[in-house]
Amino acid sequence: MSFDYKIADISLHEAGRHQIRLAEHEMPGLMALREEYAEEQPLKGARIAGSLHMTVQTAVLIETLVALGAEVRWASCNIFSTQDEAAAAVVVGPHGTPENPQGVPVFAWKNETLEEYWWTAAQIFAWPGVDEDPAKGANMILDDGGDATLLVHKGVEFEAAGAVPSAAAEDPEEYRVILETLRKSLSENPKRWTGIASQLRGVTEETTTGVNRLYQLARDGGLLFPAINVNDSVTKSKFDNKYGIRHSLPDGIMRATDVLIGGKVAVICGYGDVGKGAAEALRGQGARVIVTEIDPINALQAAMDGYQVATLDDVVNQGDIFITTTGGKDIISAEHMQQMKNKAIVGNVGHFDNEIDMAGLAAIEGIQKIEIKPQVHEWVFPNTDGKSIIVLSEGRLLNLGNATGHPSFVMSSSFANQVIAQIELFAKSHKSYDGDDAYATEVYVLPKVLDEKVARLHLEALGAKLTELTKEQADYLGVDVAGPYKPAHYRY
Amino acid sequence: MSFDYKIADISLHEAGRHQIRLAEHEMPGLMALREEYAEEQPLKGARIAGSLHMTVQTAVLIETLVALGAEVRWASCNIFSTQDEAAAAVVVGPHGTPENPQGVPVFAWKNETLEEYWWTAAQIFAWPGVDEDPAKGANMILDDGGDATLLVHKGVEFEAAGAVPSAAAEDPEEYRVILETLRKSLSENPKRWTGIASQLRGVTEETTTGVNRLYQLARDGGLLFPAINVNDSVTKSKFDNKYGIRHSLPDGIMRATDVLIGGKVAVICGYGDVGKGAAEALRGQGARVIVTEIDPINALQAAMDGYQVATLDDVVNQGDIFITTTGGKDIISAEHMQQMKNKAIVGNVGHFDNEIDMAGLAAIEGIQKIEIKPQVHEWVFPNTDGKSIIVLSEGRLLNLGNATGHPSFVMSSSFANQVIAQIELFAKSHKSYDGDDAYATEVYVLPKVLDEKVARLHLEALGAKLTELTKEQADYLGVDVAGPYKPAHYRY
Amino acid sequence: MSFDYKIADISLHEAGRHQIRLAEHEMPGLMALREEYAEEQPLKGARIAGSLHMTVQTAVLIETLVALGAEVRWASCNIFSTQDEAAAAVVVGPHGTPENPQGVPVFAWKNETLEEYWWTAAQIFAWPGVDEDPAKGANMILDDGGDATLLVHKGVEFEAAGAVPSAAAEDPEEYRVILETLRKSLSENPKRWTGIASQLRGVTEETTTGVNRLYQLARDGGLLFPAINVNDSVTKSKFDNKYGIRHSLPDGIMRATDVLIGGKVAVICGYGDVGKGAAEALRGQGARVIVTEIDPINALQAAMDGYQVATLDDVVNQGDIFITTTGGKDIISAEHMQQMKNKAIVGNVGHFDNEIDMAGLAAIEGIQKIEIKPQVHEWVFPNTDGKSIIVLSEGRLLNLGNATGHPSFVMSSSFANQVIAQIELFAKSHKSYDGDDAYATEVYVLPKVLDEKVARLHLEALGAKLTELTKEQADYLGVDVAGPYKPAHYRY
Amino acid sequence: MSFDYKIADISLHEAGRHQIRLAEHEMPGLMALREEYAEEQPLKGARIAGSLHMTVQTAVLIETLVALGAEVRWASCNIFSTQDEAAAAVVVGPHGTPENPQGVPVFAWKNETLEEYWWTAAQIFAWPGVDEDPAKGANMILDDGGDATLLVHKGVEFEAAGAVPSAAAEDPEEYRVILETLRKSLSENPKRWTGIASQLRGVTEETTTGVNRLYQLARDGGLLFPAINVNDSVTKSKFDNKYGIRHSLPDGIMRATDVLIGGKVAVICGYGDVGKGAAEALRGQGARVIVTEIDPINALQAAMDGYQVATLDDVVNQGDIFITTTGGKDIISAEHMQQMKNKAIVGNVGHFDNEIDMAGLAAIEGIQKIEIKPQVHEWVFPNTDGKSIIVLSEGRLLNLGNATGHPSFVMSSSFANQVIAQIELFAKSHKSYDGDDAYATEVYVLPKVLDEKVARLHLEALGAKLTELTKEQADYLGVDVAGPYKPAHYRY
Repeated sequence: MSFDYKIADISLHEAGRHQIRLAEHEMPGLMALREEYAEEQPLKGARIAGSLHMTVQTAVLIETLVALGAEVRWASCNIFSTQDEAAAAVVVGPHGTPENPQGVPVFAWKNETLEEYWWTAAQIFAWPGVDEDPAKGANMILDDGGDATLLVHKGVEFEAAGAVPSAAAEDPEEYRVILETLRKSLSENPKRWTGIASQLRGVTEETTTGVNRLYQLARDGGLLFPAINVNDSVTKSKFDNKYGIRHSLPDGIMRATDVLIGGKVAVICGYGDVGKGAAEALRGQGARVIVTEIDPINALQAAMDGYQVATLDDVVNQGDIFITTTGGKDIISAEHMQQMKNKAIVGNVGHFDNEIDMAGLAAIEGIQKIEIKPQVHEWVFPNTDGKSIIVLSEGRLLNLGNATGHPSFVMSSSFANQVIAQIELFAKSHKSYDGDDAYATEVYVLPKVLDEKVARLHLEALGAKLTELTKEQADYLGVDVAGPYKPAHYRY
Repeated sequence: MSFDYKIADISLHEAGRHQIRLAEHEMPGLMALREEYAEEQPLKGARIAGSLHMTVQTAVLIETLVALGAEVRWASCNIFSTQDEAAAAVVVGPHGTPENPQGVPVFAWKNETLEEYWWTAAQIFAWPGVDEDPAKGANMILDDGGDATLLVHKGVEFEAAGAVPSAAAEDPEEYRVILETLRKSLSENPKRWTGIASQLRGVTEETTTGVNRLYQLARDGGLLFPAINVNDSVTKSKFDNKYGIRHSLPDGIMRATDVLIGGKVAVICGYGDVGKGAAEALRGQGARVIVTEIDPINALQAAMDGYQVATLDDVVNQGDIFITTTGGKDIISAEHMQQMKNKAIVGNVGHFDNEIDMAGLAAIEGIQKIEIKPQVHEWVFPNTDGKSIIVLSEGRLLNLGNATGHPSFVMSSSFANQVIAQIELFAKSHKSYDGDDAYATEVYVLPKVLDEKVARLHLEALGAKLTELTKEQADYLGVDVAGPYKPAHYRY
Repeated sequence: MSFDYKIADISLHEAGRHQIRLAEHEMPGLMALREEYAEEQPLKGARIAGSLHMTVQTAVLIETLVALGAEVRWASCNIFSTQDEAAAAVVVGPHGTPENPQGVPVFAWKNETLEEYWWTAAQIFAWPGVDEDPAKGANMILDDGGDATLLVHKGVEFEAAGAVPSAAAEDPEEYRVILETLRKSLSENPKRWTGIASQLRGVTEETTTGVNRLYQLARDGGLLFPAINVNDSVTKSKFDNKYGIRHSLPDGIMRATDVLIGGKVAVICGYGDVGKGAAEALRGQGARVIVTEIDPINALQAAMDGYQVATLDDVVNQGDIFITTTGGKDIISAEHMQQMKNKAIVGNVGHFDNEIDMAGLAAIEGIQKIEIKPQVHEWVFPNTDGKSIIVLSEGRLLNLGNATGHPSFVMSSSFANQVIAQIELFAKSHKSYDGDDAYATEVYVLPKVLDEKVARLHLEALGAKLTELTKEQADYLGVDVAGPYKPAHYRY
Repeated sequence: MSFDYKIADISLHEAGRHQIRLAEHEMPGLMALREEYAEEQPLKGARIAGSLHMTVQTAVLIETLVALGAEVRWASCNIFSTQDEAAAAVVVGPHGTPENPQGVPVFAWKNETLEEYWWTAAQIFAWPGVDEDPAKGANMILDDGGDATLLVHKGVEFEAAGAVPSAAAEDPEEYRVILETLRKSLSENPKRWTGIASQLRGVTEETTTGVNRLYQLARDGGLLFPAINVNDSVTKSKFDNKYGIRHSLPDGIMRATDVLIGGKVAVICGYGDVGKGAAEALRGQGARVIVTEIDPINALQAAMDGYQVATLDDVVNQGDIFITTTGGKDIISAEHMQQMKNKAIVGNVGHFDNEIDMAGLAAIEGIQKIEIKPQVHEWVFPNTDGKSIIVLSEGRLLNLGNATGHPSFVMSSSFANQVIAQIELFAKSHKSYDGDDAYATEVYVLPKVLDEKVARLHLEALGAKLTELTKEQADYLGVDVAGPYKPAHYRY
């Protein structure tokens, strides 16, 4: 093989290529960027280390970065999420063959171990020759969840300390693996990460978790390079969360259970953007939706949108379907689950699997767990004459586990933000640019006018036609004809 | 094995049993009937020949008939629709084992040939000893589509004629197979079907097609026994069509394509009950729905519900998704498909596959058909630089082909009508009963009060609580406290 | 004045004319009929006695009848419902002046006494010279509620008996007035009504109440002439009830109370067509809607549409707004009202004012009734520290009392049915026509194809474009290209 | 009379008192504040000069301020918006009589002249003895639109200059009146406004316009005291704009025209919060809604919500109803109106009346304007055979002109923000308080936790029950159990 990569099975590339072709049609934002920047090649010279679910949609993202001039190495940011055929197709490339791959090095396959996962994370920085000359390594990170960024920061930290510490007793298993990965690295090259970090112009990050880590690093003075928070672009957060979930929640429930949603009582825990999309989707299927909330403003929104707002305790025995959307923890407890109706369906589209107390459920003495099919389990309570509930995806994100996650069109919006942020930061990071508008080693959100640009790129595909302000109208409103049109605090 | 049956693989029975158990919870109508009639055993003595898709839901129907006292033999009414694990579980029965099956003889497996199909249809009448003594054979038919009924009527007709005619040149292939099946039967026993028909008290039929055949037979004087039209119960037609499709249409589109429905333009051809459910589902997902209609009343309903009403010709180049729901033919022509946007999605949830002119599409010279995955095909038009459309399920019912058909709850409603109709007819067919209220050899709809009963059986499961009329209020309205509550022509 | 009529104030005619002109635009069905029949003049020779709320919309109906060749005399069918300016404009006519009215004799004004009301009912039959020669009198009745028809039938009955009986003690006040009216008539001309009836070719009737009376007369053998039931046309019943109420219920609540509907809990009693429209309207304003029902089929529809279905007893203390839509009686009792939340709003859009037990409410000892404004009353319960409820329109139809009833577009649909039925019956009543398709002295519904015609007449105004069947498609469906398209029992 | 005030007619007070009593029930936020602070009396010592539409809802606000200890003087902020009966009731007070008024001095009546308007604005600062001792004057302003604040700032400016300048030729008429008002003041007391300003602890302002003026003053260094921007509280902006309009737009259209909204094509110009509420309302009534937008993000939201997004030019001949919601100008031009369908309805719920080019419409040669009723005009185009459009409220806010503006519940939310801001600022303005958390002379938004408090105050009235975080859950989320729960940039 002509370059270093590892995927499950490269022979899958043709199936992946068909899917990529169809996905391109649903990702008008990325395709418009390819067209707009075909000549200019704004990412020429960029060497991007990418860590993001290696799906069909990500394949379109990767090939867009390449089309804009970048060199790319890629890993997934989740041990389960790789679609092998997509990975294969990206490796082979649109014009290559399995024997002569001409695509991008991808280090990802479905069902990695933790050790494999952190090995792949390290591989996206292992550009040929980088150990000898850091300038041959990555100069940009595109991150989802912050693992790639974490690896660099921890690597630099431990290299400065001269040693990797031992894991403490209370450290999670995964942290142990990270330490081991870096310990091995340190033994191979004690200045590797310091060198890599020196060349990095910045990172673009698209998750709440990753962004929180970045803000914390910045606050603590530990941030090593500029960062753009893509997560809080309107075209990322509102769209991804609300419209993505509106699609993928019913999709997941239907695929998992084939249960008629119409006429059922659905309890949605949380009425943030995810909860709003979830509630709208299930109401659109004829369910009666009850919302639980802790935030009085969101609760008032739910009431004004016509939903009953109640506490879970009060309605736990009425619901047929329970969905967490909060980002919090212990939203649905084991006691709650015991009080539910027979065959109630429980799932999570919020964040981590601790929104539902799966550990508490499993700990009930005598409880029986039956796998109906993969990612769909019936939990039969003891001493109840067979009363049971159905838990989807073991409490993890059901829209990923029971369906296929966000549709391409939604990802086009998120990924167009990523690409634009990469262009911005590659050009104007203070590490390589000294203009007044250089990005310092801080965390930025994308300028609103670029957020608007992402929206603009998607309108035509929907047949939506935008009205243009006249100069006179723009002056009256005190805005530029080309935008941005709203003050920073505008809530959409 | 202890009795005669044929299914694909009996070892699947455990998987089927789990699914049946879950489906029972979603079929409260059938379960309530089991409870109500546990003691009375109204189907004791009934020998039911059943012909209906052999799915998990049908398994619950079959076991309900058995629980009410019936003996049953079963075949599927479609060569593709059998779920083998459901068939296996029914054969084994809840208390049997593969070595000692104690269930019901089932003649059905996924992907039958036409010859096999009509063989299975004959098997449901081949009760042990029936050739010697017709009184040992079936005395009831439960039909879906009318094939079992057709076989009996044709058998009787040809036995009377003394011979089975040859197929005409223009006869469809399937008719040839039917003739061949009966020709063989005639050679084995020239009075078989005449004997069987003499014992049949009646048939209950649940499809439009089957019902139309029955009305035609009755009109032409050829009907051999009483029939109950279950198709036109409100709890069958309105629920099955509207609420079933509302669920299974988006399910099918999502599973097939993973395309975001939100923001898309969906063209729904037809605004009958199926179209109403389809439009509501896609609007509920954020699509902009355009309706085409030929009936001005339905068109006015669509307009009043806020949909644009247009001709397909006028909007064929605006739609992203096209769905036929009409029961008619040639709704979407090959020319229409050539005018659609690139990657438009085309599917049918109406009736037969001729709603979309698949033959015309395939006949376009130079057209290329790519299988994206089973039941999802991309058709690339020649000389268009790769412009293509996506056709679901080859133009057949996409909610069956790309999803799993109607959910259990919907089928519970249809099947409760079937069970109640079986009870009615078994007890009161003029063939075995001479009360004034005997069913003659005609086609009946279920009395409204039984239709209401089916609805009643499903309310509790939804947590819906019915108000009871006082005697005084009922008198004021001129109805009985127990119903029926509406005049026959009431439209709901 | 050139002819005999009585209205409140003819000087209002200009205001009425403006409103008629605007209403014409919203009544495309009637205007299309004017155009279609301008030349043919199918009502030439018709002398129509009309009894129907004398509103602006009715003015358009009357002038349509005239445009089709009819002579007309008019009264209102309700003592409160006349819009005086509309009456004035009809009398003056589009081309007349108050000094030289050239319109139609109208006997109607706002707030008639019962005596006046029945005097006006008699006037529409008092055509010049009719006492001498019945052939100079009315030959058609257009009725709403059946009062005009009742008067003729009672007149004939008493003339046959030779005397008008005395009212019984339990007879309602209104019946006394009717008897008095006829007693006076008998003394003037003992054969008046017998003569009138002999000339009448038939009646078209548009209310449930009036239609029920007609069916009863037909059943009892007392019907004197053919009748067409316009009430059960789809374009009347579904549209009038569902879409009319969807508009006029929130209109009435808003005008009466200015209370924000969003976020409120609304209890809708009944889920027939009126209830469906009511529920949709309030949900569309962001209310949470709870439905009560006695009919399990309608209840199941409500559940499937996502509404909570409960008994009033269970939710009476949760609702902010209570609306009856049933046609029954004692739906909301005085006890219910005492259990409601402070300032709950109670109203009726069903049928008679006995849906809400106003008498029981008024009979509570110590209750205080405060008129907030006309048709809006606060009822303060004794010994409750000021707890009160708001009752709209004294329990009568709030969409009439607090708003302006059905919008013109809805009435266009009802009235187009009336006009078409008048044309049908005037031409084909057996009283003047002996074709095989003559209407006998029975009650008919309009042929479905005419129902479809009414729908057709309204589509263009909404920009809706109908698809036409090809001959081949129509044959496949077994229908005529021109309709009707559905079997009689189709439910829409 | 015991104090100085001027209103139209004090005898109206009883009608106003009834309406205030009903409105109190719909303003749970204000009533909860009365209860919470009954003892503490946080506004004891506050002397509030209030300038805000003198409606029934404002009466509840004023009496809440009084209940919290404040002294108040009031004027309306609009020459048309006073409800005289509300003003009368406030003057008389709940326990006073017309002969012995015990309420609050109010300077407001319906239909003021500009001269009268600015006289009333001055009166709210004319506290007895203030000219002699500014400390006897107002120490707080509660403003809507900024006129009261403007008067103080201009007064101080001109007093510093020693003279009031002459109006320039291009100055609007109103500015002339302001100058004249101040010129008179200067002649009476050349230090009046300087004295008043010295005592003012701050202003709370609730409109976009007023807030913009404040930010501009702050930016230019001219702001004289601290200000709280109440307009951008979530519970003000989102609720007022979206849910208020959702109610009052259909209310206005229905009252004005009685036209059936169902089935119509409605074009909504703008998809900000007002546009979102407008679109939802009309869709909820069965209209087909088309949206026009200039902002690609809002346009994408509209598309994702299932609306067609088009330019007005492209759909101007399809719409039946056109509503502007933009805050911009010249959204609907005279040319647009000429291209509309006959009898199209045109109205504005955005901001100023220049959203619709009324001047351009009136300037069309030969155009005829017919008053159908107050605030509803038909404009008949010349040479068109009577083609006309209907313009509501002369292009001004139709929800005020044709309906009654925002319902009480919506105002309760806005006004609770006002009261809380008054408490905050009165206690912690740097003018009278030197804590670290003192408000400096800048413009602030309310702390999020107070915004949440306003929401909290309204939940109970809706029957909504809030979930409480455990300490552990709150820690996990990094928030306080008592809130605030979201970061500042959260968009809701």
